[in-house]
Amino acid sequence: MVQKRTNGKKPVISEEKTLWWDDEQSCIMAVDQTLLPTEYKVLEIRTINALSDAIRRLAIRGAPALGVAGAFGVALSARSCESDIEFEETVAADAAELINTRPTAVNLSWGVKKVLLSMENLPPEMAKIMALYAAKKIAEDDTNTCMELGRNGAKLLPQIGTVLTHCNAGALACSSWGTALGVVRSAWKMGKKISVLSCETRPLLQGSRLTAFELARDKIPVTTIIDSEAAYLMQQGKIDAVIVGADRITKDAVFNKIGTYMHAICAKHHNIPFYVAAPASTFDVEAEAKDIVVEERSRAEVSELFGKTTVPENVPVINYAFDATPLELVSGIITEKGVFYPPYDFSELK
Amino acid sequence: MVQKRTNGKKPVISEEKTLWWDDEQSCIMAVDQTLLPTEYKVLEIRTINALSDAIRRLAIRGAPALGVAGAFGVALSARSCESDIEFEETVAADAAELINTRPTAVNLSWGVKKVLLSMENLPPEMAKIMALYAAKKIAEDDTNTCMELGRNGAKLLPQIGTVLTHCNAGALACSSWGTALGVVRSAWKMGKKISVLSCETRPLLQGSRLTAFELARDKIPVTTIIDSEAAYLMQQGKIDAVIVGADRITKDAVFNKIGTYMHAICAKHHNIPFYVAAPASTFDVEAEAKDIVVEERSRAEVSELFGKTTVPENVPVINYAFDATPLELVSGIITEKGVFYPPYDFSELK
Repeated sequence: MVQKRTNGKKPVISEEKTLWWDDEQSCIMAVDQTLLPTEYKVLEIRTINALSDAIRRLAIRGAPALGVAGAFGVALSARSCESDIEFEETVAADAAELINTRPTAVNLSWGVKKVLLSMENLPPEMAKIMALYAAKKIAEDDTNTCMELGRNGAKLLPQIGTVLTHCNAGALACSSWGTALGVVRSAWKMGKKISVLSCETRPLLQGSRLTAFELARDKIPVTTIIDSEAAYLMQQGKIDAVIVGADRITKDAVFNKIGTYMHAICAKHHNIPFYVAAPASTFDVEAEAKDIVVEERSRAEVSELFGKTTVPENVPVINYAFDATPLELVSGIITEKGVFYPPYDFSELK
Repeated sequence: MVQKRTNGKKPVISEEKTLWWDDEQSCIMAVDQTLLPTEYKVLEIRTINALSDAIRRLAIRGAPALGVAGAFGVALSARSCESDIEFEETVAADAAELINTRPTAVNLSWGVKKVLLSMENLPPEMAKIMALYAAKKIAEDDTNTCMELGRNGAKLLPQIGTVLTHCNAGALACSSWGTALGVVRSAWKMGKKISVLSCETRPLLQGSRLTAFELARDKIPVTTIIDSEAAYLMQQGKIDAVIVGADRITKDAVFNKIGTYMHAICAKHHNIPFYVAAPASTFDVEAEAKDIVVEERSRAEVSELFGKTTVPENVPVINYAFDATPLELVSGIITEKGVFYPPYDFSELK
């Protein structure tokens, strides 16, 4: 089930994949993101149940990566289905199960639907081949998209400066390279000296565990802070820009990891540019913020830390996974198709 | 060294002391705040080293409690000194050691200096008695101050509403009753139905461990959230006011637990009143924010959680214990002498 990385090889993570299809074993391979930074394991995922579980417990997470996971999931479902008669029904049920694992993340359903579309009206044998082809294309496109997006965003950063980020919108959130961190990587490639302040991102610490890990591996200077320290460092003049990813962008708001909204307000207060980096697949331009259900996650994510109880048992917890940042607080949205500026008009993405 | 509470008695914590002098054993007794909410232990502190250690590792914390601890510390030093010749020197050295444990907390040095003053020009035998008398008076006054402050603040709260707080400015931060939470307790006593949103307060989780614990014990409705969720709940209209304590108030800023500044900015953005509750001893009205050294604490507070590494070893951490909220963001400062409103003039506290 699990592979340990050999210590002999030291991969450069920016070239390393987070999520891919293994042709030999005909299964999905994914870096288990719950174990980093202390352990690096690759999961071999052979069933939709295993994939749903990996997504639900955030072993696979990050908006673009979820799109790729959804795509490979449909391919896996199609290739695992042994009955030609129940083929369509089975794949449709698996697709629905996958989408339901993370209702707020638009990329997940985007990836699922894109592969379903590629299979439409094809006989099962053909559909199985097309599904995998389409899913692999999505994974490949994801990397290219991140690099394009990175180049577009890198121009916005100063020659020397410090960027604040929240959660992990990096290589680990995509199939590789990253969105917000892709911008930082591209800036480095252009010769800019950008250092990163990585908010740890409670409750699941993707910032300290994943962002810090992957930037340190690329030798990009990174420092970890608690989420609530960002405003104070802005006040001290230590932050030149904020860049975050997004899980969904509606016509009026950016949905991203809880805490993003607070950083956006504080950036505005200090006149610091606040950028969002996300591929076009993240946009849901017909929807408004009020239409979106924000996922509430388990109490235990907040109340238990590595087996230790930190909230008294009789005290409830509110644990939203995302918040909604109104576009008024966003200085620019960086995509592979260019940078959008206020007043925002996403009609070309329809 | 340690006493377990008998499970038979169920104390109402608002009447329970956090920190007191035990006459029989001639030592300081203090609830160990690092172990809550899962374990309730009372420390018996017999030496200045033990007291300094308890303060440094935050077994004793909270601005008013530090004042009381500093006061009892000087009394302990005086009473432990066996040499009449070296009496003054020994006590002065111990006093300096105590003050250095938490440089930003003004109450600590306030408590130390107040007891030193009470001993001035007295022969050792007299000084020992006076020191303990003065320290006990400070502890007693602290409770009365909190209750007075609580009454003043309770009037500002709505009849029914939800208050956000950060860290623990409660009974556990004082000798009893609390400052910010004292206001909530007084509001309940007046018949107001106030519920509390308690930010967990990374890195040391005083909000989830202590604030949630002591309010639940008093049957005051309390819910725990991660620090970065507050802004989102403000946006949802779920927060009517913010009340926090303070570690030091200069003529231009409130120094309090890191994260306070971010809440103040977000409260302003949502037009939610932001109150500070603190006794007059917290004021340092001659000083300006730029004069104050903000304590930086250890990397491990952020990078290690219950023995688990959450930040890669080669990644640095910035860990300020406090931030400075400019008075422009503060709607009112609640003290035992009344409520101060903008434009602030603290000259009567000189």
